[in-house]
Amino acid sequence: MSNTLHKLLAFVVLAIACQAAAWDGDPLPSWHDGESKQAIMRFVTAVSDKAGPDYVAPDARIAVFDNDGTLWSEQPMYFQLAFVLDRVRALAPANPEWKQQQPFKAALEGDIGTVLEGGEHALLELVMATHAGTTTDEFSLIVEDWLASARHPDTGRAYTDMVYQPMLELLDYLRANGFKTYIVSGGGIEFMRPWSERVYGIPPEQVIGSSIKTKFEMRETGPVLSRLPEINFIDDKAGKPVGINQHIGRRPIAAFGNSDGDLQMLQWTTAGVGARFGLLVHHTDNEREWAYDRKSPIGHLDKALDAAAAEGWTVVDMKQDWKAVYPSVTGR
Amino acid sequence: MSNTLHKLLAFVVLAIACQAAAWDGDPLPSWHDGESKQAIMRFVTAVSDKAGPDYVAPDARIAVFDNDGTLWSEQPMYFQLAFVLDRVRALAPANPEWKQQQPFKAALEGDIGTVLEGGEHALLELVMATHAGTTTDEFSLIVEDWLASARHPDTGRAYTDMVYQPMLELLDYLRANGFKTYIVSGGGIEFMRPWSERVYGIPPEQVIGSSIKTKFEMRETGPVLSRLPEINFIDDKAGKPVGINQHIGRRPIAAFGNSDGDLQMLQWTTAGVGARFGLLVHHTDNEREWAYDRKSPIGHLDKALDAAAAEGWTVVDMKQDWKAVYPSVTGR
Repeated sequence: MSNTLHKLLAFVVLAIACQAAAWDGDPLPSWHDGESKQAIMRFVTAVSDKAGPDYVAPDARIAVFDNDGTLWSEQPMYFQLAFVLDRVRALAPANPEWKQQQPFKAALEGDIGTVLEGGEHALLELVMATHAGTTTDEFSLIVEDWLASARHPDTGRAYTDMVYQPMLELLDYLRANGFKTYIVSGGGIEFMRPWSERVYGIPPEQVIGSSIKTKFEMRETGPVLSRLPEINFIDDKAGKPVGINQHIGRRPIAAFGNSDGDLQMLQWTTAGVGARFGLLVHHTDNEREWAYDRKSPIGHLDKALDAAAAEGWTVVDMKQDWKAVYPSVTGR
Repeated sequence: MSNTLHKLLAFVVLAIACQAAAWDGDPLPSWHDGESKQAIMRFVTAVSDKAGPDYVAPDARIAVFDNDGTLWSEQPMYFQLAFVLDRVRALAPANPEWKQQQPFKAALEGDIGTVLEGGEHALLELVMATHAGTTTDEFSLIVEDWLASARHPDTGRAYTDMVYQPMLELLDYLRANGFKTYIVSGGGIEFMRPWSERVYGIPPEQVIGSSIKTKFEMRETGPVLSRLPEINFIDDKAGKPVGINQHIGRRPIAAFGNSDGDLQMLQWTTAGVGARFGLLVHHTDNEREWAYDRKSPIGHLDKALDAAAAEGWTVVDMKQDWKAVYPSVTGR
């Protein structure tokens, strides 16, 4: 037997051995071996089994994930709201009238209570003042700059280090089994796209979110898309199935959320024909994260929790089901 | 040397030989070997060459294609308009008042001149009456049923057999080189999605188009998305870069169109940094297809043709550049 053939054989054996090792390893090491983990793995195994009754062709293996409270934390306020407040501060010198004018005055003083008292209208005014008036390219850089320096008030972590390690593993596990993973969030589509691929492995074209209108303009320097202070689409509650249909054009087979804002997305997903999977992340861990559900204004989880029991959706108990919450290695 | 090793070696040799054969073949056999074909192949080779100055990572190799007049024919009227007229006829028994009421009366009588005289308003009224009022699932079936039986008045072909063979080869060639191919059309997004994967190899999530609004409804039979008689988005002209940004979230590196409706899409695409490619299909073949450009109301090509000369975009001369227009084997 020639030396070349020896090497070839060794290579083939090694390749097979490596693959076997990869499949033998636990794809969800941060999940305790409880009912949630088993339900996930049963579903993925069933739809991937070509000979089984629940097989789903790879191109139809579409999984949709809410972002705030499902893939990363959302307390003490949605991270995008922290961005809004920082942007108000950054833009204040150019807008001196904001010192006397609500809701800007309260935002500048860090008085979230007063901002929230202004209701949806006040929030919308802040979002428009901080999210419009730039080109799409400029806004993307503003988001990246902010994420590079901003730190969470309680943990001191970068916001993108407050993603859930067990959910990162779940995203990888689904993709390794032929799934296409999407974000479907009430948050801003252009706020998430600059970092979704780096942090979650989800490319911009698989991010669905709320948006403001943009306008094509031919400037002297070339064409731009300028961001207008006008709502285009709210991707929340009954808007989520609409956004999914608009962007994906077919029904997902698995949906992951954590609040009543995800109820219709889970209903729409799990009502489809064939094997379907719905999962809610229940925030039960007040030591490692935050515990909240039926009475929380942020991440309000009430009707969807009742629906989960009735529909047989998996409910993740963060405290019981997750060995770790955040990635241990930071500095991505 | 063992028998197993012999077989293994033979397999490896065969695999390498097959791959070499695949690469040796002409990826664009229906294109004459002229400047258009060479420009396409130069661009694809350049962005795929990892050692070259124009290399583009595979996930950024995004190519966008107009549909009407670029991937399939659009004469004597946009194929979706033929669908509209057939739908008016199908729905007429349930709407007896249409016999006296314009633009329905003209549509029922096949009097396209009068329909077009009514302008955008008349067309919109016909589209709303024929495209709304169903669920998304129902509409998808209606489109498929229509395509299965409808035939083009001049060629007698199924409409999906009037796709351009050279463009099918181009789509395959781009995908074989790591490109993600998208449709970006002024036509209805839900009109194209049911068949785009079967006909073009483009999955529904990579189809961008004009749309009407939809609404999530929980019915007794389960959740549905119902189609409303209200415009959501017009994906034409300056709307195309907006639609691209909304759906893809990054700028394509190659854009393919055939009319002034594609001008802004080509401007937006080719103004990006790095290697870019713009192409217009010029309808010059009155024997095998139709010849039209600056004076045609359908597929109006005037400003974009001038821009192509100024910007160095490739202009395909259908008569000179294409050996074949439609696939020779029908009945897909």
